Amino acid sequence: MPKNMIIGQSGGPTAVINASLSGAIQQAMRSPEIGEVYGALNGLEGLLKERIVDLRVNFKTSEDFQLLESTPSAALGSCRFKMPPHPDPAYDTLLQIFRKFDIGYFFYIGGNDSMDTVQKLSEFFLSRGEDVKCVGIPKTVDNDLPITDHTPGFGSAAKYVATSVAEVYRDSLVYDIPMVSVVEIMGRNAGWLTAASALARRPGCPAPHMILLPEVVFDPGAFLDRAAQLMKAEQNLVIAVSEGIRLASGEYVASAGTSATDSFGHAQLSGVGNYIKSLLQSRISCKVRAIELSLLQRCAAHCASLTDVREAVAVGSAAVSCAAAGQTGGMLVFHRVSSQPYLVTCDWAPVGDVANLEKTIPGSWITPDGWDVTGEMADYIRPLIQGCNSTVIKDGMPVFFTLDKTLVTK
Amino acid sequence: MPKNMIIGQSGGPTAVINASLSGAIQQAMRSPEIGEVYGALNGLEGLLKERIVDLRVNFKTSEDFQLLESTPSAALGSCRFKMPPHPDPAYDTLLQIFRKFDIGYFFYIGGNDSMDTVQKLSEFFLSRGEDVKCVGIPKTVDNDLPITDHTPGFGSAAKYVATSVAEVYRDSLVYDIPMVSVVEIMGRNAGWLTAASALARRPGCPAPHMILLPEVVFDPGAFLDRAAQLMKAEQNLVIAVSEGIRLASGEYVASAGTSATDSFGHAQLSGVGNYIKSLLQSRISCKVRAIELSLLQRCAAHCASLTDVREAVAVGSAAVSCAAAGQTGGMLVFHRVSSQPYLVTCDWAPVGDVANLEKTIPGSWITPDGWDVTGEMADYIRPLIQGCNSTVIKDGMPVFFTLDKTLVTK
Repeated sequence: MPKNMIIGQSGGPTAVINASLSGAIQQAMRSPEIGEVYGALNGLEGLLKERIVDLRVNFKTSEDFQLLESTPSAALGSCRFKMPPHPDPAYDTLLQIFRKFDIGYFFYIGGNDSMDTVQKLSEFFLSRGEDVKCVGIPKTVDNDLPITDHTPGFGSAAKYVATSVAEVYRDSLVYDIPMVSVVEIMGRNAGWLTAASALARRPGCPAPHMILLPEVVFDPGAFLDRAAQLMKAEQNLVIAVSEGIRLASGEYVASAGTSATDSFGHAQLSGVGNYIKSLLQSRISCKVRAIELSLLQRCAAHCASLTDVREAVAVGSAAVSCAAAGQTGGMLVFHRVSSQPYLVTCDWAPVGDVANLEKTIPGSWITPDGWDVTGEMADYIRPLIQGCNSTVIKDGMPVFFTLDKTLVTK
Repeated sequence: MPKNMIIGQSGGPTAVINASLSGAIQQAMRSPEIGEVYGALNGLEGLLKERIVDLRVNFKTSEDFQLLESTPSAALGSCRFKMPPHPDPAYDTLLQIFRKFDIGYFFYIGGNDSMDTVQKLSEFFLSRGEDVKCVGIPKTVDNDLPITDHTPGFGSAAKYVATSVAEVYRDSLVYDIPMVSVVEIMGRNAGWLTAASALARRPGCPAPHMILLPEVVFDPGAFLDRAAQLMKAEQNLVIAVSEGIRLASGEYVASAGTSATDSFGHAQLSGVGNYIKSLLQSRISCKVRAIELSLLQRCAAHCASLTDVREAVAVGSAAVSCAAAGQTGGMLVFHRVSSQPYLVTCDWAPVGDVANLEKTIPGSWITPDGWDVTGEMADYIRPLIQGCNSTVIKDGMPVFFTLDKTLVTK
């Protein structure tokens, strides 16, 4: 007797989180073990309020899936709700809802914090003897999940970052004047996305000239010395800087003077580009401009990597296959067999190995002076940005998927 | 006996200014009236220093032109140099250089300020009885040139703005919380590019909910009332705001507290998004974020409009044809025959009708309340963003044209 499934999206959006949703729904529709295919609006937050939609009715043709796969952000809506530790009334609320909707499969697309939720629910249902398979589907532009070679969402953000840095360098050449362009890139504690700027380099494009990573302590004096030294050889510098660089004191460069935090308790960062700009202007007498790639780097579906989209679909599909085969308490991960030719396998890992942990850049992929990444880093990222996803275009503009959010009532 | 031509690029870059350069070079190579095809590095500034390159040697195959046409910014480099009024020693310097290089044709790709240079040089050469045809080729992301229906460069920037606004709206839906996203868009005195955000609208995308144009006096109190009213109907607002909005006093909203100017004497604007953000936070208790599209909107070749690229090539080509046929002192302009189907002709206009004049949005295309543009505005812009230019891609990244900058010596 098939049981029903429910899937939710959690944490910050990416350009391909909906591609994972598409993969999961398609596989569910092919699985005799799975009955109804439900979606939770705004993740756990909506699920606890029974905000549940029927996904089968939303997908009549393959074009519907194609449209979903080229739509950025989270079609079901997301949340920053973290499941409280057991015991908590939320667990019994969920149990009642799962029984009411006859849910046997729970899928959660998210990052470190969301995998913590998968782990807690998996352990809870096992402890109660409830047959609910709980499986995590990885996503994050930050690429900071452990175990997995990389994370869906990162490749598209990396492609956007590298492409934008290459275009910014071109723009910086326009006038015959010395200029420094500071490009601020997402990444709170892990510098993967900032490191992706290195892919902009090729003959004719030496940018970025410096890459400032959160993995390296930021020393303002040494930075100014290095920038001044580089300006002797080249009048146009592009400096890629992570929003998360910190001083030797451990203080975020960007958070000096602000104490705002998001609902997970993470410090909200902004303005590191402007800080670096002011710092440079204190020492170097040339034009300096700060460019914040901002949230466009995580939602620019128009610049999505085809490899990333396909992998996001595959990982969503694999999660459903594993659950249907009886697995629980795990997350799908990529294992890289080789970079040239690029070959990965999609494997299963216990979600406890992933939850709440952050993978930062290994020291061996950072140059000894700390101002750049190595060629191995570029070789690692390059396969992930290959190919352009073909979006659905009408009247010159991308068309996005719109979910029928009619709630299912029982 | 053919005479030589020289071409330069001036003012701020666009995604398609090189497409006009390509069109001009290709037409020159087909024209028996034209001998050598020279390029001036960094416009008039470089020309006055004899920084001249041979363009024929740079283009051996049609692939070279294709590469140039998908390269943003100015391949020859640009300048913000404005020709001083006659008499000035610069005129005689130029005359000597033109005679030395046997220049009979001068082309300048630029905006209002650059057309002033074309006019001055045209009048100077005529007054001296020198046979030098001077022709302007329009470009600007601002779309503020008079006479012409629109300006090459605008369509691609408009496509980037509208696409980004649509993606930002998607991103703003991710959490189930009220939020205002303020998107800051280029345009000092003319709101065309900000108005282009209206193309983001379609079923499922009501954004942008307000469009703040420099053509409309900005009233902070009325703005807050309007935003609060809109928030009653929808919890996610996207507000498109021009960098150039001004208070009733005439003061730029963004320039309160700063007096920086660029080398043309224009006020350098920044921070209007953050101003609006602070203003909203003083009244509305919800998350507000400011996103500056910054210079990416003028150099995002990866999102260029195919229509814009083709028109840029065509206008460059037409300029050379007109000059070869003996015309001087003019600029090429577009005349729109119809929007549906889209049909334009490329015509000649005296450059004096264009130089130093700015075309702002007609009042009839702004809604009576001043918070939006009309459907006619959208119908006007829509044809200009059609089609995606196919860029040259290698290893997942755009490849750009690199000019051989070896100087020609005489």
